[in-house]
Amino acid sequence: MLRRLARLLPDHVLLTDLAQREAYAWDNTGMRALPDAVVLAESEAQVVAVLRFCHQERIAVIPRGAGTGNVGGALAVRGGVLLSTQRMNAIIEIAPDDRLAVVEPGVVNGVLQEALQSQGLFWPPDPSSSHTCTIGGNIALCSAGPGAVRYGVTRDWVLGLRAVLADGSVIQTGGRTSKGVVGYDMTRLLIGSEGTLAVVTQAILKLAPKPESRRLSRAVFSSVEQAARAVSSLMTTASVPSAIEFLDGASLDLLRETGSVSLPAAGRAMLLLEVSGAEDEVERRAKVVCDLVEAFSPLEQTPPVKGEEAQQVWAARYALSPILKKRAPKRVNEDVVVPVSRLSELMVGVETIAQDLAIPIISFGHAGNGNIHVNLLVDPEDRPLMAKVAPALERLFRLVISLEGSLSGEHGVGTQKRDYIQWEIGSDSLLLQQGIKKLFDPNGIMNPGKLFPDS
Amino acid sequence: MLRRLARLLPDHVLLTDLAQREAYAWDNTGMRALPDAVVLAESEAQVVAVLRFCHQERIAVIPRGAGTGNVGGALAVRGGVLLSTQRMNAIIEIAPDDRLAVVEPGVVNGVLQEALQSQGLFWPPDPSSSHTCTIGGNIALCSAGPGAVRYGVTRDWVLGLRAVLADGSVIQTGGRTSKGVVGYDMTRLLIGSEGTLAVVTQAILKLAPKPESRRLSRAVFSSVEQAARAVSSLMTTASVPSAIEFLDGASLDLLRETGSVSLPAAGRAMLLLEVSGAEDEVERRAKVVCDLVEAFSPLEQTPPVKGEEAQQVWAARYALSPILKKRAPKRVNEDVVVPVSRLSELMVGVETIAQDLAIPIISFGHAGNGNIHVNLLVDPEDRPLMAKVAPALERLFRLVISLEGSLSGEHGVGTQKRDYIQWEIGSDSLLLQQGIKKLFDPNGIMNPGKLFPDS
Repeated sequence: MLRRLARLLPDHVLLTDLAQREAYAWDNTGMRALPDAVVLAESEAQVVAVLRFCHQERIAVIPRGAGTGNVGGALAVRGGVLLSTQRMNAIIEIAPDDRLAVVEPGVVNGVLQEALQSQGLFWPPDPSSSHTCTIGGNIALCSAGPGAVRYGVTRDWVLGLRAVLADGSVIQTGGRTSKGVVGYDMTRLLIGSEGTLAVVTQAILKLAPKPESRRLSRAVFSSVEQAARAVSSLMTTASVPSAIEFLDGASLDLLRETGSVSLPAAGRAMLLLEVSGAEDEVERRAKVVCDLVEAFSPLEQTPPVKGEEAQQVWAARYALSPILKKRAPKRVNEDVVVPVSRLSELMVGVETIAQDLAIPIISFGHAGNGNIHVNLLVDPEDRPLMAKVAPALERLFRLVISLEGSLSGEHGVGTQKRDYIQWEIGSDSLLLQQGIKKLFDPNGIMNPGKLFPDS
Repeated sequence: MLRRLARLLPDHVLLTDLAQREAYAWDNTGMRALPDAVVLAESEAQVVAVLRFCHQERIAVIPRGAGTGNVGGALAVRGGVLLSTQRMNAIIEIAPDDRLAVVEPGVVNGVLQEALQSQGLFWPPDPSSSHTCTIGGNIALCSAGPGAVRYGVTRDWVLGLRAVLADGSVIQTGGRTSKGVVGYDMTRLLIGSEGTLAVVTQAILKLAPKPESRRLSRAVFSSVEQAARAVSSLMTTASVPSAIEFLDGASLDLLRETGSVSLPAAGRAMLLLEVSGAEDEVERRAKVVCDLVEAFSPLEQTPPVKGEEAQQVWAARYALSPILKKRAPKRVNEDVVVPVSRLSELMVGVETIAQDLAIPIISFGHAGNGNIHVNLLVDPEDRPLMAKVAPALERLFRLVISLEGSLSGEHGVGTQKRDYIQWEIGSDSLLLQQGIKKLFDPNGIMNPGKLFPDS
């Protein structure tokens, strides 16, 4: 197989050595799965060649961006050809008049943002891995970050796509206009499809004007309930913060231990509240937000800060993930989402699960969207502890569904949640989705073992 | 057939008299197509009963909202059962904490907006027919209006749907959360599918805080090019107007004739520029917009006005459609869309078509989205004039495609543009879309004769 594939591609594009393949055997889950070959595609033509060949030979193809995913989506769990688009990293065009950029899938999110800076524009999806993750990965997973509370998610910021189907045919979806209703919405069908339908080779991204200025304040509460109520209230007001981030009591304990932030001893929940806008508007907006939060009796509320000072506050939030990685040998990172009005119930339920099963759980995340990262801190060597992970996740997912939430706000399904997808999606809808999959990929070569329970 | 259908439904739900059916034989195109029966469904159960029966008997079902569509989408062009959801008009829930509303499809857009008023919220899609059109129709067509330049279109403001498939099975898509990436995006697949895939029976709508205040200014230019350049420039700035509406020279002539507005004699293009936001922000923003427009040498620019005065300016814009209806025995109303940077080329091209073919054409629309309503004023009795309609449309559509635009920004395809859909959508993509159609509706009963050329 490899010899015939090699005939279709330049030498430096096809990697077959064990050491080279090892470099593409991981993602952010800590799992490992070795592909049979790695293709570092440099052009759409090469993507077409690989897919056409694998379609005929019925070989699995695993599309991959930067490998920063959290659900095993970019892992070759059934072997096959890992198809990286990282080398297709050209920013083809930035058109400020039309507020759009045309990019290849391998462009790193942060690199695009830098390129847009001088135009006063930005692309709103802001996952915390933005310095590493690629636009292709963002599209495959429908990524988002703190800014989603104001700007929405990846699906809201893509105008059109070029994509290669399993059989090597190329389709174009959407276009360069901000409106368009001719035919079915194939753009959104591909966004979030986790590499199971097609490989994106070009994207037309919708851009937004970059806010002139930002203000960030911090509020610490004695209970999760108080913090959650403040969030609900903020969401009913006209001054939409550009981020409403939440940290639970266990997160605050961790911050206290690292000594990075000084916090009230009784603090069991924290909100980071950011507003953005024109220079002469943000002060007023930040005040509106602070006044509103004041009504929920925070133990402490810092006045809004900007620039370097704000960066420092954000740094504490972003330090949590790496700290957790160091703390526990393994972290099971879920990203459940509930309606904002049910946040308090979610957090109380998560604490109960942690206590009942005696598993350390640390939760933080995008409260304005009800999207919380629930981190189970475990140790693969500790068998009794590991045995409690599955029951804990089952209880968490049942809780989320009972609160009318979703199992994933931004990470996706991949291999990690495919056994649970039926808890959320009814059988008639799942059947349709599997029908769509079969239509796009009749031989089932696109990212097998992901998304669907029986794939 | 009718007798058996009658057994499934209460008497007052099934209309079979000619006079009753006549009332559902029209839409906004001026065309007429008589259904064999009309069902005024009052519940999802009745929708299920009708679809299950028609699926088995292979009878066409034409879903219909308020019949305000512009492309024949709600017409029974092949006979069959017209299924109106107008009686399913309950606002089931308004949840300000979660910024959502749950509605039945027959709720009138404007009725929902009124119900939201006291909560300080609104649902952004704002078609000019909002006082009549239903949410179900808005979803079927992915409707939009002037506000789309700031808020986007229907697909951006729906969180989840309940829908009945052709065979009577019920699916649920999305949910009550503002994020969610589990499975394919079935919500967006249904939005804009023009009743060819399913009948929506419930929608969870995402709401936005209603801006406290608005300011509207008017700028008149000596040429379309100047106005178009001002629009491009506005789109690159941070202060996004909430509407940028355009009127061409022929529209201004019409306004002059009616004596409703006094305009500079040399004026050949007008922009209506609206900004919205907090009370103490709009003045500044309106000034930013006016200063920017000033650089493009308008013949006249009015200072920003609010309230009643602004309503009067809008009234002139909205008076155009009814005036046109009275002026010409027939109006062919297209809603093409191009990238904003190509607006000027579009307008010059349209003028050339009007001159070359000696057809009166009046254009106006949502310039901030590059979405222009191109109205051909004709007379069905005037055969030589009517013979020029098809060639004019062909030239218009070729022009739009050459400018990287789309044949429709908000009206959809229906019967009117289905012969042109292949100009915009490649054959591989069209094949996939037809495959999706077959998957949802194997017997082809859902709104036949719409969207696809061979349906």
